[in-house]
Amino acid sequence: MSRDDGDDGNSAYGRRAFKRSKAHFTDRITADGRDGWPVAAGRYRLVVSRACPWASRSLVSRRLLGLEDALSLAVADPIQDDRSWRFTLDEDGRDPVLGIRYLSEAYDRREADHPGGVSVPAIVDVPSGKLVTNDYQQLTLDLATEWTALHRDGAPDLYPEALRDEIDEVMADVYEDVNNGVYRAGFATEQAEYEAACTGVFRRLELLAERLERQRYLVGDTITEADIRLFTTLVRFDAVYHGHFKCNRWKLTENHVLWGYARDLYQTPGFGDTVDFDHIKRHYYQVHTGINPTRVVPLGPDLSGWLTPHHREELGGRPFGDGTPPGPVRPAERVPAASTP
Amino acid sequence: MSRDDGDDGNSAYGRRAFKRSKAHFTDRITADGRDGWPVAAGRYRLVVSRACPWASRSLVSRRLLGLEDALSLAVADPIQDDRSWRFTLDEDGRDPVLGIRYLSEAYDRREADHPGGVSVPAIVDVPSGKLVTNDYQQLTLDLATEWTALHRDGAPDLYPEALRDEIDEVMADVYEDVNNGVYRAGFATEQAEYEAACTGVFRRLELLAERLERQRYLVGDTITEADIRLFTTLVRFDAVYHGHFKCNRWKLTENHVLWGYARDLYQTPGFGDTVDFDHIKRHYYQVHTGINPTRVVPLGPDLSGWLTPHHREELGGRPFGDGTPPGPVRPAERVPAASTP
Repeated sequence: MSRDDGDDGNSAYGRRAFKRSKAHFTDRITADGRDGWPVAAGRYRLVVSRACPWASRSLVSRRLLGLEDALSLAVADPIQDDRSWRFTLDEDGRDPVLGIRYLSEAYDRREADHPGGVSVPAIVDVPSGKLVTNDYQQLTLDLATEWTALHRDGAPDLYPEALRDEIDEVMADVYEDVNNGVYRAGFATEQAEYEAACTGVFRRLELLAERLERQRYLVGDTITEADIRLFTTLVRFDAVYHGHFKCNRWKLTENHVLWGYARDLYQTPGFGDTVDFDHIKRHYYQVHTGINPTRVVPLGPDLSGWLTPHHREELGGRPFGDGTPPGPVRPAERVPAASTP
Repeated sequence: MSRDDGDDGNSAYGRRAFKRSKAHFTDRITADGRDGWPVAAGRYRLVVSRACPWASRSLVSRRLLGLEDALSLAVADPIQDDRSWRFTLDEDGRDPVLGIRYLSEAYDRREADHPGGVSVPAIVDVPSGKLVTNDYQQLTLDLATEWTALHRDGAPDLYPEALRDEIDEVMADVYEDVNNGVYRAGFATEQAEYEAACTGVFRRLELLAERLERQRYLVGDTITEADIRLFTTLVRFDAVYHGHFKCNRWKLTENHVLWGYARDLYQTPGFGDTVDFDHIKRHYYQVHTGINPTRVVPLGPDLSGWLTPHHREELGGRPFGDGTPPGPVRPAERVPAASTP
């Protein structure tokens, strides 16, 4: 996401409607390498923040597809400073593979004085140290469809050709009203702007709940990219969007269908094991000083419910289609127990 | 409450622990008139904001005791300006009985350059236009015990002599951890200070829930002052304290016992009919710019649940003891339907 979005925390709002800018670096890593970036095992490094919903899509996709060995992972500190995302969680404050302290260094190597700001998710070319893409909308689609040669055995098809029109349509609505709607609500500086966004969030959530009442997943009977994109917003809903972004008509836990749906995914290998509630809460509450000047991080909500039975398997569905669940999380990538319910 | 509290909205927080100052004007209106202010029908005017939990105690007491004719009521605008509470809800922006535009004018008549700030609840002597008391802790006790000659027939005993030690003990804990605890949490500027306050709020609420699981009211088997003081915080809990003050371990609606207890009181004549959720939400979110710089007021939560069955009558109890419920609200004092669930 660019400097203009909610996740770099620098200039995300002001006396104007919140507007998410398009990603600036849209090169694609493809099987045929037509943009100069061929899919290759070990060549690229995925840089994320576990706080960021847009980056978290790629964390889930990478796990479901079994790309952990092919595409290595750098996790940025959830709290940016004035130079944006940094590797202060790593020893000596440097990413051990890229050798850089700030993600901006990879951006600078790609293009000096780039106009778009520094955002995650980002994929960096390890040999040159250059940023390849920060195009959060395309990045996971390419993991699903271009990186197939490196997928694990049993990887699911997250973007099945026959369902792409429907998936795209659902994702467009989810993006506008939910993924980005919560940001428009949270960063609104005018009452009317907030009310329009917040109303849109809940109107869409109610429509999605109707859709999910009798079917386990959003499109077809397996997990797709559409579920990943809805999940990364829902998992943050009560923890940050409900209070911090004022999306408070009801908590996710109060909506029987969506709470069951979100728990079902959370408890599916590859989803919940990527979530760090500590990073999420500290990022939102400490970085957005324009809406939380004290930087105090709430103690609530009680998150223990995420692990309770959801009974969604009674709806049928085949989570991984003809495939299988991913294996356990690599020890180096485990979220600390204290940060999970 | 003084200028130092949460309800005048001017200097309620800063780089120090939030501290509620004591009321400055502590004269008492008594049956024997020993402070110079004898109880008398029609002589005094009660000034409140329906937003303020401390002032709302007196709104409930006045209704339960049937003091509407004896003690008239002025309702201030929920949004103060830099001269504090004002009568901008009244025609020409003046209280029709006192003839003043700002409550501060009554304070000034009492004492020029008084040091304590302007707060509600306040009782003003109508003939002289002078403030008599803004002592929110004593004011309702005096309505219950000194104004008895003017109580309606069937008025309950809200502070029964035999139970005063127990009532005082419960009220002291509720004050420290709950009534004032939510303010200490909400205005905390340091994480540790917030966490101590928020933890205290929920620890006390859980103890209160244990107490109220098998008994309908806090002390004895009738409504007392202790219930009034807990109610005025609980009724604001999900609307403002949960999000705005970060008391978000759980919503009141998620605690079966306390949600039932609060609804029971809300649906009792004299309680819910004094509550204006619109005043409450606008006051907290628009006045406390130090913790909500955008002044945006959330659309949530859904408040319709306040009128749902609570089944607390199964616990027995005699809400008004040997007395009766109060009659209907005076038409001029009705809260607009749009401001109630």
